[in-house]
Amino acid sequence: MKTFNRVTEKDLAYFSALMPGRVFSGEAISTDYDHDEMTEYGHFMPEAVLHALSTEDVSAVLKYCNEHQIAVTPRGSGTGLCGGCVAIHGGVVLSTEKMKRVLEVDRRNMTATVEPGVLLMEFPKALEGTGLFYPPDPGEKTATMGGNAMTNAGGMRAVRYGVTRDYVLGMEVVLADGSVIQLGGKNVKNSSGYSLIDLMVGSEGTLGFLTKLTVKLIPEPKVNLSLLMPFDDLDACIGAVPAVLGCGCEPTAVEFMEREVIACAEKYLGKQFPDTSADAYLLVRLDGPSAEALRPAMDTLTDLALSIGAKDVLLADTDERKESIWNARGAFLEAIKGSTSTMDECDVVVPRDVIPAFVRRSVEIGRRIGVRVCSFGHAGDGNLHIYACRDDMEEAVWKAACEQVMDELYAAARAMGGEVSGEHGIGHAKRDFLRESVGEVQLNLMRGIKAAFDPNGILNPGKVV
Amino acid sequence: MKTFNRVTEKDLAYFSALMPGRVFSGEAISTDYDHDEMTEYGHFMPEAVLHALSTEDVSAVLKYCNEHQIAVTPRGSGTGLCGGCVAIHGGVVLSTEKMKRVLEVDRRNMTATVEPGVLLMEFPKALEGTGLFYPPDPGEKTATMGGNAMTNAGGMRAVRYGVTRDYVLGMEVVLADGSVIQLGGKNVKNSSGYSLIDLMVGSEGTLGFLTKLTVKLIPEPKVNLSLLMPFDDLDACIGAVPAVLGCGCEPTAVEFMEREVIACAEKYLGKQFPDTSADAYLLVRLDGPSAEALRPAMDTLTDLALSIGAKDVLLADTDERKESIWNARGAFLEAIKGSTSTMDECDVVVPRDVIPAFVRRSVEIGRRIGVRVCSFGHAGDGNLHIYACRDDMEEAVWKAACEQVMDELYAAARAMGGEVSGEHGIGHAKRDFLRESVGEVQLNLMRGIKAAFDPNGILNPGKVV
Repeated sequence: MKTFNRVTEKDLAYFSALMPGRVFSGEAISTDYDHDEMTEYGHFMPEAVLHALSTEDVSAVLKYCNEHQIAVTPRGSGTGLCGGCVAIHGGVVLSTEKMKRVLEVDRRNMTATVEPGVLLMEFPKALEGTGLFYPPDPGEKTATMGGNAMTNAGGMRAVRYGVTRDYVLGMEVVLADGSVIQLGGKNVKNSSGYSLIDLMVGSEGTLGFLTKLTVKLIPEPKVNLSLLMPFDDLDACIGAVPAVLGCGCEPTAVEFMEREVIACAEKYLGKQFPDTSADAYLLVRLDGPSAEALRPAMDTLTDLALSIGAKDVLLADTDERKESIWNARGAFLEAIKGSTSTMDECDVVVPRDVIPAFVRRSVEIGRRIGVRVCSFGHAGDGNLHIYACRDDMEEAVWKAACEQVMDELYAAARAMGGEVSGEHGIGHAKRDFLRESVGEVQLNLMRGIKAAFDPNGILNPGKVV
Repeated sequence: MKTFNRVTEKDLAYFSALMPGRVFSGEAISTDYDHDEMTEYGHFMPEAVLHALSTEDVSAVLKYCNEHQIAVTPRGSGTGLCGGCVAIHGGVVLSTEKMKRVLEVDRRNMTATVEPGVLLMEFPKALEGTGLFYPPDPGEKTATMGGNAMTNAGGMRAVRYGVTRDYVLGMEVVLADGSVIQLGGKNVKNSSGYSLIDLMVGSEGTLGFLTKLTVKLIPEPKVNLSLLMPFDDLDACIGAVPAVLGCGCEPTAVEFMEREVIACAEKYLGKQFPDTSADAYLLVRLDGPSAEALRPAMDTLTDLALSIGAKDVLLADTDERKESIWNARGAFLEAIKGSTSTMDECDVVVPRDVIPAFVRRSVEIGRRIGVRVCSFGHAGDGNLHIYACRDDMEEAVWKAACEQVMDELYAAARAMGGEVSGEHGIGHAKRDFLRESVGEVQLNLMRGIKAAFDPNGILNPGKVV
């Protein structure tokens, strides 16, 4: 393990000269910076927080920290779920929250170039009137686009459109020694040597610091509608997924939801879900150029769903109806969080045919160990979000029980051909599970890559590898 | 530069004991193995050719060669265009041509697992009756699927469906020391550490030897049709591309073709192209669930094309009509090859808005230097195939002129934000252009990655980095 130098007054003076008014230390650092959205993984206060405004800022800070062996933790808006942006070795948090300009929307090439701190919820404004659309749709809309790229965030529309990786065309990256490289650009295909850009996507700030991002846009689908399919139980619900995916209707999203989680969301939002008839629901969204063009797919899906056990198929084609369903879906994470004192999360991805078996297993594990476990997730791509809720358990009991639940969940995912994280990443919280999942040989390859990019190990130490 | 040991009688005896009847040396090696499809890049005879049958064969050979510092060049069916599978440092060619089993078609997960030597043209047979479809469609149908993955091959359908990378879900790879790793699996998304699988895709056998490949399949589109749009000149033709891509019709393929290249194909095939009215054509393909479902997109595209300068829009919706057009398009490479004594090729990719400028520049460069230059390519994704034809030029004149043409083409692509290769890769023929394009910093990162995977440098030496 590398050791790092503490941030001294001299270091702070250097940073302050470089970026006046944007350097915080000691009590001037908000406690927001000592954690991300999962407080369960601990609080770690950085020694300094720096707000970068430009590539030059980032380059100068990294060069300095590399020479002085100071740990640097890149951070966007801190909405991660595995501690990736938390300074577990102290040192400097280098934040992109002020780098939030949309630099260009290129209509002819259908690309946009943004600074890393642009929020996912703000980006669509820059596309208004262009007829263009950015498909990745992670649940957390206050996340930054840079953070999304560095964790390869997924989201609900991944079934049809793919994940963030599929939309990253170009990156400007500052390496640990302060040198600036341009990866990719506006080209939509590439076979020119090792794909450094694909390596950078999902590297959680351990290989370089993202300072500009060029993403692919697509023509905006003009209409969308959703079909809500109630089922008697979760098994029947998830069992329907392969047929839904295989029928050629190109669904944009296929989500599953259980009554218990919906009830949390109803309470959290203070709004009724539009259907109360069932224990489990499949929610399917279709996008297209016109309502007429979606008609055949809608008919096919409706007939199919009814033939494989759906009790009904509810069409949501008005804004009000769509919102009542999708707002509930969007509130699941916050609603579960609000329903318990604290919680731990597992974001595994498994082959789609074992989703029912995995969800059954998670319920069984929770019952046996005595922890409330609830789940929702992207049925269309096998990415499940399983939550172990502490509720009113005693600290020591909870710690032991939660650890056992997580160990068993990850072991079950491995046994079923799954992987540790579908979209949230590894951070520091899931490193042990990654090691168990990929094994020492692969982890050593990753460490070799890390050493090639960041020989002094200053970039986001203690994360991923 | 590493030096390698020659293959001795003792080595041959070891290989023969390991894989009896599948070891060739000296005059028993067919001259096919001393080149790929671009003989312009030289002939290099390996010292031994080994036909692997299994992962165990590959592992044993690599372990032995790693210990004895013998160069190993992985090879599929040898259809590459930049010397990637040619043993420029001698040693062993390890061929996958006998590893050609389709191991599984998993209908529920919509995946297939194949050995690397399965030919692209043979794979669809394994999918017959499943309703599933493998979208990547590189022009060379006798290429292997393993070779496609290791060069990140593209092809005509990339506009809608993406390139080979987008379909690689899992890989079994043998590392240089003989250890076997499993990357990915049947999961359709993943954020679990550095994406080693994305690093392996397009690495041209320099980081590991692919022994099994799991690819994503999609529901087969039930119908397709093509629209052939004649234009007065190439400029008008390619100028129409952004509008075609931006109109929301989701074209599967958008190809451009010039009269001169079509004439080569007519001669080569002995068949007339169905239209002779124009100097340049845009060819657009649409896929969908039914003819009815494609109607709105077809109407939109037709109106659009006529409004931006197409002289006509010819519909190809019968097999005969489609074949007459697409067979011509498919024959371009062979037809150009047949029209000249030898040739060199440039496979750059540029942002789509500069395609017309780049094609104009290539014509100007050819004229000025006095080399016949012809081009065709994937207008929809900016990937151009530009051919410099030797015709009856004297050897020395041709060498100098061709070098100048290529230097200027790659410089022009760089200046326009392009990259060295859109889909053919780097091999040994394009290494200098890669260095000029990405610069020393990125090349050093790539070398660091190479060293982490293959410390002795035995895997496909002299390629890519």
